[in-house]
This record gives sequence, C-alpha cells and structure tokens, in this order.
Amino acid sequence: MEQSVPEVVIRRLPLYARALAFLLEADRAVISSFDLGPMLGITPAQIRKDLSYFGEFGKQGTGYDISFLLGEINQILGLDKNWPMVLIGVGKLGQAIATYDGFQNQGFPLVAALESDPSKIGQSIGNLVVQDYKDLSKIVEEKNVKIGVIAVPATAAHQVIKDLVDAGIESVLNYAPIAVNLPPTVKIRHIDPIVALQSMAYHLNKRI
Amino acid sequence: MEQSVPEVVIRRLPLYARALAFLLEADRAVISSFDLGPMLGITPAQIRKDLSYFGEFGKQGTGYDISFLLGEINQILGLDKNWPMVLIGVGKLGQAIATYDGFQNQGFPLVAALESDPSKIGQSIGNLVVQDYKDLSKIVEEKNVKIGVIAVPATAAHQVIKDLVDAGIESVLNYAPIAVNLPPTVKIRHIDPIVALQSMAYHLNKRI
Repeated sequence: MEQSVPEVVIRRLPLYARALAFLLEADRAVISSFDLGPMLGITPAQIRKDLSYFGEFGKQGTGYDISFLLGEINQILGLDKNWPMVLIGVGKLGQAIATYDGFQNQGFPLVAALESDPSKIGQSIGNLVVQDYKDLSKIVEEKNVKIGVIAVPATAAHQVIKDLVDAGIESVLNYAPIAVNLPPTVKIRHIDPIVALQSMAYHLNKRI
Repeated sequence: MEQSVPEVVIRRLPLYARALAFLLEADRAVISSFDLGPMLGITPAQIRKDLSYFGEFGKQGTGYDISFLLGEINQILGLDKNWPMVLIGVGKLGQAIATYDGFQNQGFPLVAALESDPSKIGQSIGNLVVQDYKDLSKIVEEKNVKIGVIAVPATAAHQVIKDLVDAGIESVLNYAPIAVNLPPTVKIRHIDPIVALQSMAYHLNKRI
C-alpha cells in the first residue's frame, strides 16, 4: 500500500464503500467509473485516480467488480475490524449518541460512557452504565478503546481532548462546537450541523 | 461582493465567525492572521486570501478589528437573519434534532416537524406538533421555510429530497446515510458520523 495517500482521498473511500454496498444490494456485479461518478458527484477520472493509490482494481472496458472492490476498500479502511469507542458527556446529545445503534452495527461499538457530573454517574443509558470521567485512562486501557466521542459543552471540550490524548486516544469524533488546533498525530472529525447550516445560509442570503 | 467565491472559502467562514466570537468573549479587540491561523489550523496567508474575497478588513501591521470583522462575516453569511427549517422524520434521531435548542439559538428555528407514519402525527415534540408529511408544500409556503432537515431512513431519503425541491426548498441538512447526486442549484450538507469514523479507522488500521 502507498504510504502517502492524500487525506481527501481517504475521506472519499467511505463514500465509495457506501455506493458499492448499495449497488451490491441492488444485485449489480460490475460498475464502470462512468456509472459510479454520477452517484457520488465525482468525475470518473477522479475515481480512477483515487482507487489507483491502492492497486489495480478495474478492467479496461468492463469496470470494477463491485463485491471485490467493496471488500478491498473495507479492508483498506479497517472496516473488517471493531473499533471500540468511549463517549464523554451524557447530556441530551450524549444520550442520543449512546442510544443510536448505527455505531455498533458499523463496527464502532460504544463500550463506555463517562461523566464528571456525580448525579449522572451510575445511570443506565442504552446498554451502558455511566462511569466516572476520572477513570478515563483506566477504562481506555481495560476496554482497548481506540476512539473518543466528545459530547460535552464547548467550554469543556479542549480539556477533554487533552485528557484523551494523555490516555492514548488519537482519534476523536467531536460533537462540541469548537475550532481546535491539535498535534498532527491526532485525527479529529467534527460533527457540526450549525457550521453546515451557516455555510448554506450564505447561498440563501445571496438569493434574497 | 465578488460573485464567484470558492465553496471551500464559504465553508470556512463559519469557522472564522466562531473563532472571532470566542475571542470577543475573551475581551480581545484585535487579532492578526498570524494569531488566528493556529486557532483554526489554517495558514495566515490563506486567511488573508479567504477574507480578501469580501473586502479589505485588515490593517497592515495591526490586524483585524474582531468585532467589525465578525459583524461583516455574519452579514455575508446571512446570520443576521432567521432561516426557518422543516424537519422530516421524527424517529429517534428526528426527536433528538427537534429537542436540540442550538438550532433556534443560532437563527435556524425548526418551525415544523413532518411524518408519514400516522401513529406519530399529532404527537408533541419539543414545542412542535408533528404534522402530516403530505402537507409539506403547504407548510413550506405558509411558514416561509428555507431549509429541509432530513432524518428519515436511507431508503426514503431520495424521495424526500425530490419532494423538498418540488416544494421550493433548495437547502438540505441531511442526516440520512446516503450518497446523492443533486441538481447543482441544490445545496446539501451531510451530517454523517459513520463516514467520519470510517475515514479515521483508516489511520487506526495503519498503526496496527
């Protein structure tokens, strides 16, 4: 495998996997980059270039074997494994996250939910019992946690990220509305509907 | 205002606004692109280039007036106005969205929640009463809705997007796990934690 795949390519791989899974369920066996492009809003040339980082998957004139390519992408992304996650913060948002079964189904099980508010520790959420945030490092080690999910207020988020890094977690799914600067080894993805809406408002505003 | 601001610049403007609001609350009055860059993980040169699309905001040697620049960005983004939204789908995810007060606070009020499941129509969620999805067009017109929020299963999402476009909505905040191809006039933002996690798993997988 190539060493330096551009981050933007890696971020597109899950979209390829989702489109291929959709096609497989629709009983398709083969697809060309020309037919895959419009499904994803990506040019056929870009698709061929993206996939070429990882090997030779397509056949000239026939296209990609959907089942094979999906298997390869899943393996490249590590989706053939489980990646245990810890949830930090069990307010309203944290509770919605904890009871969403999509994470578990997709190989990202929540194995612990932590809080610093004593009134919430010990409560059941989904199939988890809320534990004390103070035990973060211990829980990360015991449960082999690989990803931290942040659902605390913005004011607390920076400290939580620091604590996660100290506990050995370098992958963060962040729901707190913050802009952060992190050490380059830490990967963070922001789930931020307000920022998404604000960039759409720009276009709405231009039409007035 | 320039006509053709790159989409990637527009998507960064909300992050600038958030950082500037943070600085304002911390009683800062002026900031240079050199100090703002590390807050956002963007180079100072990129910040100056991004902002230059909209006018001359900075002073050589002193930097940006935070309050003024924030006001200008809010106006450029249309954040000085309200953008009413309709929620489609009031399952578990839809309920979490409907009871999240961040939308309202940020100028994106949910003014209606729609469902096609008869058993859910008439129920109260947050301060809304769930209405019949059949009345989408009428409700969009009556309530001057500008943005559709999709929280239906993936299988139903494509049809909902079509219906929203037919009802005159061209801005979509999509929580359904789909890859879509839309007419270029339609702006869509995907809130998709699974895709975010999958692109992080790639990096975790490389470390094993």
